[in-house]
Amino acid sequence: MKTLSNRITNLPVSSIRKLIPLADEAKKQGTIIYHLNMGQPDVKSPEVMIDALKSWNQNPISYAPSGGTPEYLSALEQYYHGLGFQFISIQNIIGTIAGSEAINMAMFATCDPGDEILVFEPYYSSYQTSAQLWGVNLVPIQTDITQGFHLPDRDTIESQITPKTKALLYSSPGNPTGTVYTSDEVKLLKDIVKKHNLYIIADEVYREYAFIDRPHVSLLEFMQEIPDQAILIDSLSKRYNLCGARLGCLVSLNTELLKSALKFAMSRLSGGLIDQHIGAQLTKVPETYIEEIQEEYRLRRDLMYKGLQSIPGVTVSLPEGAFYIMAELPVEDAEAFCIWLLEEYRDNNETVMMAPGYGFYKNPEAGKKQVRIAYVLEKPKLQRTIEILTKALRAYKNLEN
Amino acid sequence: MKTLSNRITNLPVSSIRKLIPLADEAKKQGTIIYHLNMGQPDVKSPEVMIDALKSWNQNPISYAPSGGTPEYLSALEQYYHGLGFQFISIQNIIGTIAGSEAINMAMFATCDPGDEILVFEPYYSSYQTSAQLWGVNLVPIQTDITQGFHLPDRDTIESQITPKTKALLYSSPGNPTGTVYTSDEVKLLKDIVKKHNLYIIADEVYREYAFIDRPHVSLLEFMQEIPDQAILIDSLSKRYNLCGARLGCLVSLNTELLKSALKFAMSRLSGGLIDQHIGAQLTKVPETYIEEIQEEYRLRRDLMYKGLQSIPGVTVSLPEGAFYIMAELPVEDAEAFCIWLLEEYRDNNETVMMAPGYGFYKNPEAGKKQVRIAYVLEKPKLQRTIEILTKALRAYKNLEN
Repeated sequence: MKTLSNRITNLPVSSIRKLIPLADEAKKQGTIIYHLNMGQPDVKSPEVMIDALKSWNQNPISYAPSGGTPEYLSALEQYYHGLGFQFISIQNIIGTIAGSEAINMAMFATCDPGDEILVFEPYYSSYQTSAQLWGVNLVPIQTDITQGFHLPDRDTIESQITPKTKALLYSSPGNPTGTVYTSDEVKLLKDIVKKHNLYIIADEVYREYAFIDRPHVSLLEFMQEIPDQAILIDSLSKRYNLCGARLGCLVSLNTELLKSALKFAMSRLSGGLIDQHIGAQLTKVPETYIEEIQEEYRLRRDLMYKGLQSIPGVTVSLPEGAFYIMAELPVEDAEAFCIWLLEEYRDNNETVMMAPGYGFYKNPEAGKKQVRIAYVLEKPKLQRTIEILTKALRAYKNLEN
Repeated sequence: MKTLSNRITNLPVSSIRKLIPLADEAKKQGTIIYHLNMGQPDVKSPEVMIDALKSWNQNPISYAPSGGTPEYLSALEQYYHGLGFQFISIQNIIGTIAGSEAINMAMFATCDPGDEILVFEPYYSSYQTSAQLWGVNLVPIQTDITQGFHLPDRDTIESQITPKTKALLYSSPGNPTGTVYTSDEVKLLKDIVKKHNLYIIADEVYREYAFIDRPHVSLLEFMQEIPDQAILIDSLSKRYNLCGARLGCLVSLNTELLKSALKFAMSRLSGGLIDQHIGAQLTKVPETYIEEIQEEYRLRRDLMYKGLQSIPGVTVSLPEGAFYIMAELPVEDAEAFCIWLLEEYRDNNETVMMAPGYGFYKNPEAGKKQVRIAYVLEKPKLQRTIEILTKALRAYKNLEN
């Protein structure tokens, strides 16, 4: 019998999703699990979007244009204008099936198999999966938890550039770190790609979730200076709590790139027509919707940061945005600890699920003691997870000794 | 400046979609265009599905499981049971973002770059695009319009098998041919893959549209005999006129393949939650819904077949299913004729749009004189397209002389 392809055999199982069967088993036994493992917020989607669904009046549900429906694209245009980027028009936007497809599109458009993309480690684990789908090599540049995962100096970054380097990919606010790059940092990246003629791909799906006194700095601010090189990846999933409506986009001023990316979009004919109708309502979402969520996440962030700091042996740095926090735990192997939490540990029949940190590193050893915590639960629940983690780490230590 | 990747530069623009700008231009000038170019039916989606949308009551719209929602998978299971295939359970089904993703999944799971898949030419043009995305070589085996595009003999097929051949891919009812393979033909393909240890990928998205006195023969009938080799590709797009709700699936009895395909599905986290809720209603669609459409397409098929036969110099064979007909025209270059129809020809300010045939061939020369016609318009409109085509071909001939 012919074997499956090597590439699918080698495709990693997400470190986040790998533990789901264990969680399912625990739930079957009646255990209550606090899910800190996935970026699936508990916040409601905007009412105006749900209403748009209820008043649906198209029949048949026919193909959408491959690059997005005019109403979806024009809502996105209006959104970017609202951010102050008037130079973006619908011609610069390709609607995608969530951020994942936009990442695939950017990788496929810029890289042939064997080409390299620079990333800052730890990075969003799906970057690695996408890279493996397309035969692209991610070249990781280390950042440090004690420096809040901010960028290393220019030389360190430039030293990783080879003739095969085609692009630099980053997320800010960062997943899994919560780090928000300063204006100087984004400028540094822009300068580096300008000098070395690389593409720069910015993943800004958490744009609105920045809890800092300085403004979030978008790649869009530099896009006109490097019009052929800058690629923005975006998604409505987190901004409007629409993870299950697959709504993203790719933004660029490079007309050749846009033309080519559209061919990629044509290969799957159409995105979801109904999802795009929901997405098109984004301009009608009241500003208070985002503001209230921002405030809620800021409070949760503070609670989790203080809570984790209070646990002996845990290292954290204050996350500046998104809704994640990377924590280094006083254990040898954080994945083994996460598994133990699901399989063995119970406090009053409750336990906690987290994402093992190694999945966010190219070299799993580097993240072996870390976990990613998504603070996507209400504050009293988060408070309870701190309590459980404190007790669990104590119990685990006794077990190890 | 770094260039775009070779692979995106080489990605073809669909011969179908390439002409859209010309059609848009003609429409701007007030010309009425009869669209025979795309498989976008004019038939309504089932009411019960639209109703499910209107009564949506989940908020937030959260991630669906990567392999599909339990309600969608179990509706599909029930559908296959209804067809008589009781051995299919939800464990054998992976929900996909339309048929396109199922094709990508099957190609990626079975082939590494440079591997080969056998296809019967003419074939659905998206197969070529998918093959190029994944670096797979399609090896075409010719079929003949005068034989109704039925299969060549066993030796002809086997002669194309090389050490690099991993799979055989076919569609029945066929796009673009409308050919429905007989039981002997499906059995022949099964025998060949069994002997040579190949995967067999059957695209049966037009399953219900067969206008023949013999039953449509599904690969599912042989799946238990070659459990590790058979892969079924399916989609609700055409069956329920839901092209814009991206609903497909991959069915297999090979547990290793299913596990691997799920990793592929995990790479994009989730399909559309709302689309899947619509899809889950398929068991509630009354049988008369499909029956009425079948009858309508049969009448349209008869009308188009007779109409095309009546045009001097046109070669057609009676399509047995789907809603396409391939016609060979008395012109040197069918694409040039299609362009001329859009740019120049008007009959009472009306014209016709068709898909140039070359896009369904690996070697474009082989399909140079052919067009694919999708009979997805009401009968009086189809009648009118025959009238326009008859006059247009006469005028075009005079022009050529």
